[in-house]
Amino acid sequence: MPTLVLLRHGQSQWNLENRFTGWWDVGLTDKGIAEASDAGRRMAAAGLDFDMAFTSLQSRAIKTLNLALESMGRLWLPVTKDWHLNERHYGGLTGLDKADTAAKYGEDQVKIWRRSFDVPPPPLEKGSAFDLSGDRRYAGIAVPAAESLKDTIDRVLPYFQSTIVPELKAGKRVIIAAHGNSLRALVKHLSGMSNDDIVHEEIPTGQPMVYDLADDLTAISRRYL
Amino acid sequence: MPTLVLLRHGQSQWNLENRFTGWWDVGLTDKGIAEASDAGRRMAAAGLDFDMAFTSLQSRAIKTLNLALESMGRLWLPVTKDWHLNERHYGGLTGLDKADTAAKYGEDQVKIWRRSFDVPPPPLEKGSAFDLSGDRRYAGIAVPAAESLKDTIDRVLPYFQSTIVPELKAGKRVIIAAHGNSLRALVKHLSGMSNDDIVHEEIPTGQPMVYDLADDLTAISRRYL
Repeated sequence: MPTLVLLRHGQSQWNLENRFTGWWDVGLTDKGIAEASDAGRRMAAAGLDFDMAFTSLQSRAIKTLNLALESMGRLWLPVTKDWHLNERHYGGLTGLDKADTAAKYGEDQVKIWRRSFDVPPPPLEKGSAFDLSGDRRYAGIAVPAAESLKDTIDRVLPYFQSTIVPELKAGKRVIIAAHGNSLRALVKHLSGMSNDDIVHEEIPTGQPMVYDLADDLTAISRRYL
Repeated sequence: MPTLVLLRHGQSQWNLENRFTGWWDVGLTDKGIAEASDAGRRMAAAGLDFDMAFTSLQSRAIKTLNLALESMGRLWLPVTKDWHLNERHYGGLTGLDKADTAAKYGEDQVKIWRRSFDVPPPPLEKGSAFDLSGDRRYAGIAVPAAESLKDTIDRVLPYFQSTIVPELKAGKRVIIAAHGNSLRALVKHLSGMSNDDIVHEEIPTGQPMVYDLADDLTAISRRYL
């Protein structure tokens, strides 16, 4: 049976502060570090093991993966880092907390964005401190100005299909350490969820989500460890 | 000018206890962790940057690299992990401290091993707790029973030539996080040291060794940060 585990990064400083983060590279809190190490211990205790790992280009996901692999004794596994697994880009909302956002755009607009599948937030303003288009990490990549959940899915899924699915089909056991919305893309696909349902699906930080997959990679069930 | 930095892992628990470690997977001490993070800070402060990283399959080198990259804000760099960069395999000496080794083999024999370029230590005994031939990390690899420094060089250098040299020639800036003897192999080659000199070359833990290389990758100079 193919093994696939999805792991959202541990709590970040901006998770704690309730700020839109997106592609901005925010570190883990002490709680997030503990969540990540604990995730590894729980996977090992459950008898899970992996052949390879995938993560984003963002420190909070990479560090979560490193800490989990370390507590499993699996730091030596090959790790592929790719921007396609990055968090949804929150555009002009990046850095704002709930109160800032409501004050700037109004409660009604915030509700539309929060509940919408395909409405992107406003684009990142020119000259914003959060503009990553010049970051060499993203050299050669068209850094988005903002992404809806649909936009995120539209870049995560082709990457999953082209790069990760062949490994699963070859019998490789895979862990993907990523972000709330890049993982939503995978959960929507694997569990066949509607646009409306996936918007409301909350994926907790640092909790390994184990997929039981059939040989054709359709999901039989999923569970958190 | 090509950039190449060699980084020996931070202090490990068995460095502290003065035990032969070799391929056994021993973790970093708190001092080793601090050395690794500090190495990253010093490289960043010196204006060094990288395009890719290489390390062994051993946790102490991988973790040293991860910590150094984290303190440089470069966790996102691609990292290649390969057994060819592993520490020299100390065979039957694995796990022994200086006093154990002298008691078991005699002071004179210990001196011969310590000063020898091409005399391997005794092979690891069958059934040893330190036997890694069944470790799936090394599946498909003929785990050596013991290695001389020459044996170590004979596997490190071909890997360096085939995998890392083309990247350096393509202008990539490279950091290699590895071990005392796998780095000796590279230093002997790059700095053109004699068999006798390289045996006595001590590479300190957690200190970035920066090579200034000509375009043909001959070493102009080297320095520790």
